[in-house]
Amino acid sequence: MSSQHAYFDNNSTTLLDERVLEAMLPHMQHQYGNATSRHMFGRSARQALDQAREQVADACGAHPSQVILTASGTEANNFAILGMAGTRENAKQIAVSAIEHPAVTRPAFALRERDYRVAVIATDHFGQVDPLSLQVALEKPSSLVSIMLANNETGVIQDIAALAEIAKVKGALFHTDAVQALGKIPVDFESLGVHAMTVSSHKINGPQGAGALILDKRVDIKPLLHGGGQEKGLRSGTENVAAIVGFGAACALIKQSLEARATNTQQLRDALNVGLKNMGASIFGEKSARLPNTSFFAFNEIEGETLVMALDRKGFAVASGSACSSDSTEPSHVLMAMGVTPDLARGAVRVSFGANNTQDELNRFLVALQGEVQRLRQLTALSA
Amino acid sequence: MSSQHAYFDNNSTTLLDERVLEAMLPHMQHQYGNATSRHMFGRSARQALDQAREQVADACGAHPSQVILTASGTEANNFAILGMAGTRENAKQIAVSAIEHPAVTRPAFALRERDYRVAVIATDHFGQVDPLSLQVALEKPSSLVSIMLANNETGVIQDIAALAEIAKVKGALFHTDAVQALGKIPVDFESLGVHAMTVSSHKINGPQGAGALILDKRVDIKPLLHGGGQEKGLRSGTENVAAIVGFGAACALIKQSLEARATNTQQLRDALNVGLKNMGASIFGEKSARLPNTSFFAFNEIEGETLVMALDRKGFAVASGSACSSDSTEPSHVLMAMGVTPDLARGAVRVSFGANNTQDELNRFLVALQGEVQRLRQLTALSA
Ligand SMILES: Cc1ncc(COP(=O)(O)O)c(C=O)c1O
Ligand SMILES: Cc1ncc(COP(=O)(O)O)c(C=O)c1O
Repeated sequence: MSSQHAYFDNNSTTLLDERVLEAMLPHMQHQYGNATSRHMFGRSARQALDQAREQVADACGAHPSQVILTASGTEANNFAILGMAGTRENAKQIAVSAIEHPAVTRPAFALRERDYRVAVIATDHFGQVDPLSLQVALEKPSSLVSIMLANNETGVIQDIAALAEIAKVKGALFHTDAVQALGKIPVDFESLGVHAMTVSSHKINGPQGAGALILDKRVDIKPLLHGGGQEKGLRSGTENVAAIVGFGAACALIKQSLEARATNTQQLRDALNVGLKNMGASIFGEKSARLPNTSFFAFNEIEGETLVMALDRKGFAVASGSACSSDSTEPSHVLMAMGVTPDLARGAVRVSFGANNTQDELNRFLVALQGEVQRLRQLTALSA
Repeated sequence: MSSQHAYFDNNSTTLLDERVLEAMLPHMQHQYGNATSRHMFGRSARQALDQAREQVADACGAHPSQVILTASGTEANNFAILGMAGTRENAKQIAVSAIEHPAVTRPAFALRERDYRVAVIATDHFGQVDPLSLQVALEKPSSLVSIMLANNETGVIQDIAALAEIAKVKGALFHTDAVQALGKIPVDFESLGVHAMTVSSHKINGPQGAGALILDKRVDIKPLLHGGGQEKGLRSGTENVAAIVGFGAACALIKQSLEARATNTQQLRDALNVGLKNMGASIFGEKSARLPNTSFFAFNEIEGETLVMALDRKGFAVASGSACSSDSTEPSHVLMAMGVTPDLARGAVRVSFGANNTQDELNRFLVALQGEVQRLRQLTALSA
């Protein structure tokens, strides 16, 4: 990419950290081998996996034996939802919040084919999942609740420990999708009090192709991928050694740099928000605890999609709605759940800062944004 | 690894080709991006995926639109088995051969929970799946047959076109696991006459973390991974761009070098077999059409596992039974299906040559093998 192009779409995917790539490279060169093999190549691969597993566990406040390695956050979410739904007899309901990523909502809805009911838990205007709504839903016997730790669009953070407590009282298992939280805020499996938690490598400057489900070992989960019996039989498939090593290395870097990164991205985000307000934008979830790096906003009467493409031409990569979902012109389901009008929601644009963004990039962005907003407003005015 | 250590376990995993790594590297550096994003980074990732998809299709005799990218062969097999089993109403049987990889057998057996019956199709002494046995099994209405193109342990190649014809007459869909065939013999989806075919990147000097299900678009398969709607909604999850690009590059290399590689590995394999015979080994599946690179053999009264570890200490990486399955001291199910005695089967050792092996390595191997076999025989004689 042109080094002029500023990348502000770090909730979508991130640049692989150079140090992570360095850790991976030997495993893409001479240090190959199938971790199941008993010869020297295999044993060396196994050792590398063991170390990475520890690094992942460490970044998540978990024990290595609780880490089930997968190929993505999506896989870990599907594994959790489909694998845990059947663990409680005669509890054919699962509850998910209205603002979950499709990698949670869609497997949940797929369970309808097996006669499960899906309760969708409401959120308030601030993007917060409503505890009362959860409590009421769990009056029906439920096997599983899945509520995300931080939302990919708004960045709003949920009080998972409190929600998990409600589920516990009702005897339901609890899963949280922490894909967006890891690397941006402290994440501690233990203190969240959940049974399962999803994380993903490529959101934290690790490689694409690795993720994990952190799982309380007392949960009798069913495998999603059956086969050679890797990951104690819970997740089969030849391990992607290089990607897992990279995931581990990225996790180790989080331990070092979480605070500095949070401070840096938050400075940029807060400065962006001041600029946005001056230009008359609405910022979604502004009143809630949010990820430090994320701003989700809209200008009245400017289509988000149009603004994203205009900014791309000016050299800035930002997202409209969730870049994780397939092509769709529907307004964001997250904003709908928050009671935002469809018209305003169609204007939604997301800026998500990352480790490499600078004040200079932001300054250039604010100038470009102001210009484009003005230009597009004039176009709208003309066509009205 | 020490450059002295010879790697003869290429059916387990392979060294990433340098040219493949080179193709991948830009996507692990500046050329990052989520292929779903609409900005420049995303569009560039999308283009890279499109090209890789064409390369995979091309190596498989398929159309790019028939390629569903996955993270592994295991995932593609699970997707095929679990996703296609429900496509024919009132046909609650699926048929798999007795020599399938666990990534086929285990998802098939998992379907028993949904009241499916699994018919296991016998093989003969030569490792060939018995067409009559398939015909008889399919008297019961069956939704799906899954029989592998080439076996990972023996290398024995099945006449898939003929077996698929039998299934067709009975109205069952047909899936073939071609993970071991691709890159070693010509593979042509079209002429195999199957509905679905699995391939995997890391078996063909591509990276771990990519695979594909080649699928006849008329088949109404159900997704295994639900979420953002990637791969036309059939396989969700942020695409692993670098791995997929690598898979594509490895496929492109196959087109160039399949014949040369087959000739080279076959020369080594045939020379190995001459040596093995002289030492009194039994070679499994010897009378059948086999992959050019594979030899699966046993010495009477020498444990395969013991020989593998002894050879490892001498600097040679070979496998006992299938390195793709979890730790297990059970004799190979493939050899059991072929009617080999459990005692002989426990001696099984697999040598699988790859692109980088040399005559010199083989010569050293034959000397080491002779020495170890003698030594172990003496130990056995002493302890008898
Ligand atoms: C909240 C959330 N969950 C899950 C995912 C899916 O993770 P992955 O891209 O690793 O499949 C994403 C992003 O794509 C996400 O933002
Ligand atoms: C015949 C066969 N099928 C499937 C697989 C699984 O493929 P992957 O390692 O890509 O998960 C393997 C090897 O592991 C294999 O040999």
